[in-house]
Amino acid sequence: MSTVALDHVVAQLVDALGPEHVASTEAVRAQHAVGESYHHAGLPDVVVFPGSTEEAVAVVDICREQRVPLVPFGAGTSLEGQVVPLQGGVCLDTSRLDRILRLSIEDLDVTVEAGVTRKQLDARLRPEGVFFPVDPGADASIGGMVATGASGTTTVRYGAMRDNVLSLTVVTPDGHVVRTRSRARKSSAGYDLTHLFVASEGTLGVVTEATLRIYPTPEAISSAVCAFPSLDAAVTCVIQAIQLGIPVARIELLDDVQMDAVNRRAGLHYPVAHTLFLEFHGSTAEVAAQAEEVAALARENGSGEFSWATSEDERRTLWSARHQAYEASLALRPGSKGYITDVCVPISELAQSITEARAEIDAAGLVAPIVGHVGDGNFHVCFLVDPDRPQELDEVRALAERIAERAIAVGGTCTGEHGVGYGKSKFLPLEHGDEGVELMRRLKAALDPDGIFNPGKILP
Amino acid sequence: MSTVALDHVVAQLVDALGPEHVASTEAVRAQHAVGESYHHAGLPDVVVFPGSTEEAVAVVDICREQRVPLVPFGAGTSLEGQVVPLQGGVCLDTSRLDRILRLSIEDLDVTVEAGVTRKQLDARLRPEGVFFPVDPGADASIGGMVATGASGTTTVRYGAMRDNVLSLTVVTPDGHVVRTRSRARKSSAGYDLTHLFVASEGTLGVVTEATLRIYPTPEAISSAVCAFPSLDAAVTCVIQAIQLGIPVARIELLDDVQMDAVNRRAGLHYPVAHTLFLEFHGSTAEVAAQAEEVAALARENGSGEFSWATSEDERRTLWSARHQAYEASLALRPGSKGYITDVCVPISELAQSITEARAEIDAAGLVAPIVGHVGDGNFHVCFLVDPDRPQELDEVRALAERIAERAIAVGGTCTGEHGVGYGKSKFLPLEHGDEGVELMRRLKAALDPDGIFNPGKILP
Repeated sequence: MSTVALDHVVAQLVDALGPEHVASTEAVRAQHAVGESYHHAGLPDVVVFPGSTEEAVAVVDICREQRVPLVPFGAGTSLEGQVVPLQGGVCLDTSRLDRILRLSIEDLDVTVEAGVTRKQLDARLRPEGVFFPVDPGADASIGGMVATGASGTTTVRYGAMRDNVLSLTVVTPDGHVVRTRSRARKSSAGYDLTHLFVASEGTLGVVTEATLRIYPTPEAISSAVCAFPSLDAAVTCVIQAIQLGIPVARIELLDDVQMDAVNRRAGLHYPVAHTLFLEFHGSTAEVAAQAEEVAALARENGSGEFSWATSEDERRTLWSARHQAYEASLALRPGSKGYITDVCVPISELAQSITEARAEIDAAGLVAPIVGHVGDGNFHVCFLVDPDRPQELDEVRALAERIAERAIAVGGTCTGEHGVGYGKSKFLPLEHGDEGVELMRRLKAALDPDGIFNPGKILP
Repeated sequence: MSTVALDHVVAQLVDALGPEHVASTEAVRAQHAVGESYHHAGLPDVVVFPGSTEEAVAVVDICREQRVPLVPFGAGTSLEGQVVPLQGGVCLDTSRLDRILRLSIEDLDVTVEAGVTRKQLDARLRPEGVFFPVDPGADASIGGMVATGASGTTTVRYGAMRDNVLSLTVVTPDGHVVRTRSRARKSSAGYDLTHLFVASEGTLGVVTEATLRIYPTPEAISSAVCAFPSLDAAVTCVIQAIQLGIPVARIELLDDVQMDAVNRRAGLHYPVAHTLFLEFHGSTAEVAAQAEEVAALARENGSGEFSWATSEDERRTLWSARHQAYEASLALRPGSKGYITDVCVPISELAQSITEARAEIDAAGLVAPIVGHVGDGNFHVCFLVDPDRPQELDEVRALAERIAERAIAVGGTCTGEHGVGYGKSKFLPLEHGDEGVELMRRLKAALDPDGIFNPGKILP
């Protein structure tokens, strides 16, 4: 943008939001350049902090009238470059949209502004005996989780964002405020506007509010860790548990490389083997019954003993080992950066997919722990890359591409939960066909004809 | 359509599908005029029976090139006029698309052609120890259930079509074949094309195949009927059960008028009172525990005794009483026609909403049993109308409108599961705002710029 044009836009933004909510300093712009992505950064020209849906409308109107790119920004925890302002422009930071607007225990739903983070929401809900289950690991904003279609460790039982968003308030590129749906549990009243925006990564509008399903906190929770003699054995145990309809709340795979990393990081002594981390939710009797059934399946598949955690402290220790998988991985190779790729396949293809990925990683002499939300067929490979060796990065990129292509070839997807951003656009034609991508382009053109909202994302 | 133009279209259709799959007889056209709707019928000019996605493409291409309206037709069980050819044209009957293409027990999914009916699918799945849970009552086609966003008695536990469709194959108005998504359990790979078509009622494309989630048949199933002293007491019991996280599989309300009808129809002797029909799924121990918990809640709310059914025969008798609610209602007033309206509200508003509806029905001297999928906040009022008294129909229409408007006013929707068709279009601006309807119009224009697909439906 030319300096003159930029000055004009900034003046209008200051007029609309007040000078304290418009920032052009190098430091603030740099904080909004990349998120946690390993992709190239790009500075926004200016960052704005609207405090209401109305202020977000004002920002959208200015951007549309001046034809300036607009990039929504939540907590900056996305991994595929979703928040990178590839063409500069205005970054719309939702952090001031931090109010919890409405909580109904009777209806088991909560309405929050988009900038509320997962942990902030959790702190509000827990004392009421309810919780919001979607847990992507990072303390992401709810708006960001909507935008990327986030999921995580509990999705096998409680579903992803897609399943738990009842309604959204969205500012569309024409400056309209659309509430996508009522608060009713179900509806057949016209086109599904809610899901149009889930996983649309800010390319079709800015989410300013979300109404979410919440759940009663289970009476009892029990967690366990269990090592398996092989990847196949671990995955077979998962498939059998799901086929029996056992409602496991979490069922996570850490491969042997990842377990080694976790042990080192946390000073633990788990066997260095393919390992499942499990959690059971329900009444005391249900949890005991579920745990026993899964333990029996594990034994049949040659597992070691279950290491149990039932008190909240023990469970926190156990799951913090899981949640620190990324940091633990980085420590395997000091000075490295993590390049994480995420695919999801039909569960019948999971063991083979992970085995093939592992074989290629090892053959290439790379270090890359594997973690999976295996109940969903979803796994992540965290390549540890030396940032000073561009050739290594090229090799990793090529391998990550093959993993994505193979996932698509066996009926899966190039991304189970990290989204497309501009890191995975290239795979969309392979996954959706030219016809599917063409249909997505039509949706984009119908909502954002000038291509102002988060340009360069999702569509190749 | 002029006779000449029609002859030309029919000739092209015969060319593409063969003469045996193109019908213009009065009888076949009349079978495709209205479904089970109480709305006015409208004859298609011709009915076609494609046997594959490719043949459906041929039909779509002909309709687009000749600018002829196209109305997809499943089993004809829709209630809001979805299949009525308001502008004549071509009715695309999916009954020849009746193959079950793929079943994966490991992945718990099944791929079917759109014309497969719910009972046909059930017959294929049951022997494998799995089932598809969405049960709208009628033996609808899967394509039709996708198109209306159907749900039913088990939605409180297993979700609606929206939650159980993994992927669709759709022929879009431009004649492209789009597979909306992979078979992976979850994905963040671009815009959600699947949900764009769920509940779009054939206005955006023709669904030719669907991949659905299936579930393991529970080890134990137990059903019960229980009468309550008041509507409030019954609904409070439901809310408490859900707040405790008890995973009730079915929880249906039949009001006193409906119970009277059911007793008369089936020669049963249930108390004529607000009554819950319940079902529990799980292991034997889980089912026993769930049932005991709900029975305790019911007693606290002043209920009568639970009348249990555990054997398959007993359960079938119990649920057939529930499923015959409509026929039983008609028998309350011989010669009457049923005018069924369907709304869904936040569950905290449910007792009040039903009470208000009942008061107005009684004040107007009308007969109208009420049935509800109460775990979802969804209820149906079945007005029994004398077809020879148009004034009565006007009164019923006005009352149904007030029920829909009140549902929207308390944060609910004008239709929980029957859809919009052309019976409920008028409520969309109230429910979604002008901005929401405008956005829906944009989607329609982007996909079907000539307005050929099921014209006059959904959008007001």
